[in-house]
Amino acid sequence: MILLLGGTGYIGEAFYTELRRRSLPFQNLTRAEVDYTKFRELVPFLGRTKPSFVVNCAGYTGKPNVDACELNRAETLLGNTVLAQTIAQACDMMQIPWGHVSSGCIYSGAKIVENGLVRIEADLTKPDVAELIERQPTCVQGFKETDEPNFSFRKPPCSFYSASKALGEEVLAGFDRLFVWRLRIPFDEFDGPRNYLSKIQRYSKVYDNVNSISHRGEFARACLDLWDRRAPFGVYNVTNPGWTTTRKVVERIREILRLQRDFEFWKSDEEFYRIAAKTPRSNCVLDATKLLSTGVRMRPVEEALDEALRRW
Amino acid sequence: MILLLGGTGYIGEAFYTELRRRSLPFQNLTRAEVDYTKFRELVPFLGRTKPSFVVNCAGYTGKPNVDACELNRAETLLGNTVLAQTIAQACDMMQIPWGHVSSGCIYSGAKIVENGLVRIEADLTKPDVAELIERQPTCVQGFKETDEPNFSFRKPPCSFYSASKALGEEVLAGFDRLFVWRLRIPFDEFDGPRNYLSKIQRYSKVYDNVNSISHRGEFARACLDLWDRRAPFGVYNVTNPGWTTTRKVVERIREILRLQRDFEFWKSDEEFYRIAAKTPRSNCVLDATKLLSTGVRMRPVEEALDEALRRW
Repeated sequence: MILLLGGTGYIGEAFYTELRRRSLPFQNLTRAEVDYTKFRELVPFLGRTKPSFVVNCAGYTGKPNVDACELNRAETLLGNTVLAQTIAQACDMMQIPWGHVSSGCIYSGAKIVENGLVRIEADLTKPDVAELIERQPTCVQGFKETDEPNFSFRKPPCSFYSASKALGEEVLAGFDRLFVWRLRIPFDEFDGPRNYLSKIQRYSKVYDNVNSISHRGEFARACLDLWDRRAPFGVYNVTNPGWTTTRKVVERIREILRLQRDFEFWKSDEEFYRIAAKTPRSNCVLDATKLLSTGVRMRPVEEALDEALRRW
Repeated sequence: MILLLGGTGYIGEAFYTELRRRSLPFQNLTRAEVDYTKFRELVPFLGRTKPSFVVNCAGYTGKPNVDACELNRAETLLGNTVLAQTIAQACDMMQIPWGHVSSGCIYSGAKIVENGLVRIEADLTKPDVAELIERQPTCVQGFKETDEPNFSFRKPPCSFYSASKALGEEVLAGFDRLFVWRLRIPFDEFDGPRNYLSKIQRYSKVYDNVNSISHRGEFARACLDLWDRRAPFGVYNVTNPGWTTTRKVVERIREILRLQRDFEFWKSDEEFYRIAAKTPRSNCVLDATKLLSTGVRMRPVEEALDEALRRW
């Protein structure tokens, strides 16, 4: 039996759907049944039910967006750092392998290759960098799992949310029978408040940046595939290979959904942060090579995006 | 055997001294021997050595002062929140009772009784409040263990240090065989960088406020007494009964140490925070009634202070 924690959340739903599709026996445990955030409830539950694998999709993301985490710091840390440790220690005691939904938002920017030299560029909207990327898109390389997070308590400025996720990964680093699955900006064909494609259409103004993104269903499938194939435990960037920009996504939305309306963009980071956002946003490119090298498939970002829009 | 964690720190030293004085068998474990911050090292160590009680004095306080915690947020949370949870979960699995050194700095101010009404006053330096306290010192009541922290992530503004200690208490709340010992501003007769009496003498300007304080040796004695007497587990304010002000302490220092020099005070909170401090300081009064009701003794604050100065 697979134990699903946080199965009613936006990402949890995708795991729920995929587990059903695979006809795998699983239990979608809610906190109303067993408060799995409490070690003293989780451990006996694991002892009684002996799951073969635990999937943790529970966490605190902030509603309507990540700015809410700045105001709800205790909940943010409890949901993303403290809970991760509780599950890790409980699963370790009970010798149960597990997987944890983490986030790529612990990085900012990308690696830029120029004249044979690789550098980390935390802000890809700087005019000279943006111009270079426009002219030579292959200069962009994603962060690998071996790269240190650069958007965390240890590398401020960052958002409290990102910092809590990065610290969550730190507390998990000492455990060896777990997957850390890094999601980036979920999207799919189903309209909803957490869907990147919905958000872009609902913003009064759009914030242009460069990002890796994860098709929600493919993400859940890839995560479960890693376990199914008995891939080595550890950290995986689980994003659709490649990257995109908000401008490109807007173009595809307008073309495929045949929207007549114009999209207005924030003129600059300065304007965006002054008016619309309280805390710094992570925008980053991740390298999915490690995931793909295990044989798990994720479609290239353009293909996954276009198909989601065609099914909209 | 009693297991002492963090026994080389300022408060750990006092436990070390007191355990030796009592001729109790104990082990002062360092992280170089066993990294007790790692669940997977701590649990087997507890299994091998089977201590009867664990004392945790380890934590992250920031050097030279609490402002350092604002810059070292990961270490602050790892030291004060994540470690507390690791020890709690390890001791729970191994069924070992333990005690944790927490801090009263999760409160700000005191309860003020005026015209038969009790209110919480977070800033005791406000002119009208200061005047009331001066005129009628009995109007000041300390926070009890049942009072919610009011200087934490849930009640900003606060310092990152205080918030990490309050969150530490939150993660411990689900465990039932442990003491949470709240220390406030340690002092004693031994000159040193963490000693309140030393700090006051070294500051270029002194910050006046109202506080409960803890004689370091008495603190360790009282904590061990709680365990020794098999007092009920739970949270205890472990401070010398009563409260004092920095001005009163300066008076006693000048009188007992026969210092000729003048002490300059910050004119206002505004001046202090603008020039000398980055993050808000906790200044608060705690009620030690619960501790005393178990039969454990702590001398009144005036007596403990005067004696420390006479032995200086």
